[in-house]
Amino acid sequence: MKKIGILGGMGPMATVDLFQRIVTGTPARSDGEHIHIVIDNNTAIPDRTRALLHGGADPLPEMVNSAIRLEAMGADFLIMPCNTAHAFYDRLLPFVHVPFLHMIRETLEETRRRGVRKAGLLATDGTLRARIYHDVFEPAGVALIEPDTKGREEVMGLIYKGVKAGKRDYDTGPLRRALDDMLSRGAQALILGCTELPLAFAQYEGLSAYPTIDPTAVLAQAAIREAMG
Amino acid sequence: MKKIGILGGMGPMATVDLFQRIVTGTPARSDGEHIHIVIDNNTAIPDRTRALLHGGADPLPEMVNSAIRLEAMGADFLIMPCNTAHAFYDRLLPFVHVPFLHMIRETLEETRRRGVRKAGLLATDGTLRARIYHDVFEPAGVALIEPDTKGREEVMGLIYKGVKAGKRDYDTGPLRRALDDMLSRGAQALILGCTELPLAFAQYEGLSAYPTIDPTAVLAQAAIREAMG
Repeated sequence: MKKIGILGGMGPMATVDLFQRIVTGTPARSDGEHIHIVIDNNTAIPDRTRALLHGGADPLPEMVNSAIRLEAMGADFLIMPCNTAHAFYDRLLPFVHVPFLHMIRETLEETRRRGVRKAGLLATDGTLRARIYHDVFEPAGVALIEPDTKGREEVMGLIYKGVKAGKRDYDTGPLRRALDDMLSRGAQALILGCTELPLAFAQYEGLSAYPTIDPTAVLAQAAIREAMG
Repeated sequence: MKKIGILGGMGPMATVDLFQRIVTGTPARSDGEHIHIVIDNNTAIPDRTRALLHGGADPLPEMVNSAIRLEAMGADFLIMPCNTAHAFYDRLLPFVHVPFLHMIRETLEETRRRGVRKAGLLATDGTLRARIYHDVFEPAGVALIEPDTKGREEVMGLIYKGVKAGKRDYDTGPLRRALDDMLSRGAQALILGCTELPLAFAQYEGLSAYPTIDPTAVLAQAAIREAMG
């Protein structure tokens, strides 16, 4: 069985979430049948969105530090539970000496497996503007539909004023109208392209009925398959 | 801010639980304000109860491997989310070159802070027979009350037939009679001395009203204090 290395801390709760999904998703009846996982919850990595959109500090050097530490811990392959961080994947790869699963490419494979040719993309402005999903999905022939301007504001509101602010009675009505609009424009499934969104869709009434693809869950399953060979 | 090293994998869900409690318990408004945590979820560590009670393989060499790896990752101090593993703490300590918080001693401090002089101890047979809590609490003048034979069976049942088996409607009636008996014998609080027990007490009706002390929560708070200085 291979050892998984999690390049984490972007953010810490997304790292907890991925770790938990791997543990609960592993077919094991005792501690010894579980997968050996090493984690660097590196909170010193500068904000990815700030670097991409506002000229903030380059996160690459700290990401490289984490990758090197995880390899030294014996990680046989790496995974990274942050959508926006994948904008730096190509620059990070030359510093990595083990396989490095790509969350967005794994999500593309899952999208195809489900026969989806047109998907709605819910993500932060940073992920949308850096074209993190577009650059992977469009060359593969899977079309992406974005929310309109109002809908994008609702997605950001759900993340920042709902989940991150711990607001239990957040009104998802306006958001649901934006989601319905995406479905009417032909989206066969909605990609939850921000690690806060699966929490929101599990938590708020009226959201659980939408057909969704959760990249964190996809990455957890891909990592379990890779580790168990 | 200091880096926390978690010597984990005993078991994996207890490791997830401690990690999550540290993240949610940290007063932070952004990723960068969170604590840098390195984790070795080392599932190759042999079963601690089997080693203590049934002559199973010695877990010490693998625990030492994890401690060395965590120090190499830059951990400024270590913590270990497994009650039974603390039976090996004294043998492990000479191999560790950084401070190593002791979950049972931290729990003793919390027990004293609450003014409890007599506590009920809920734990596996392995933890009880290895006297992991007794050897720390009794010299400090805090008395421990155990469940009677029937009550100990009920605690093991709650852990193995309830939580671990995922049984939602597990009947806690017989267990509650054992808990009431401990309170009537003078226990001012119940120590949840197995990492499955906080999950059970949160999950099953009729258990949340008991006065409890959760060693995983105590260790998380102690680690946050130590990391943030």
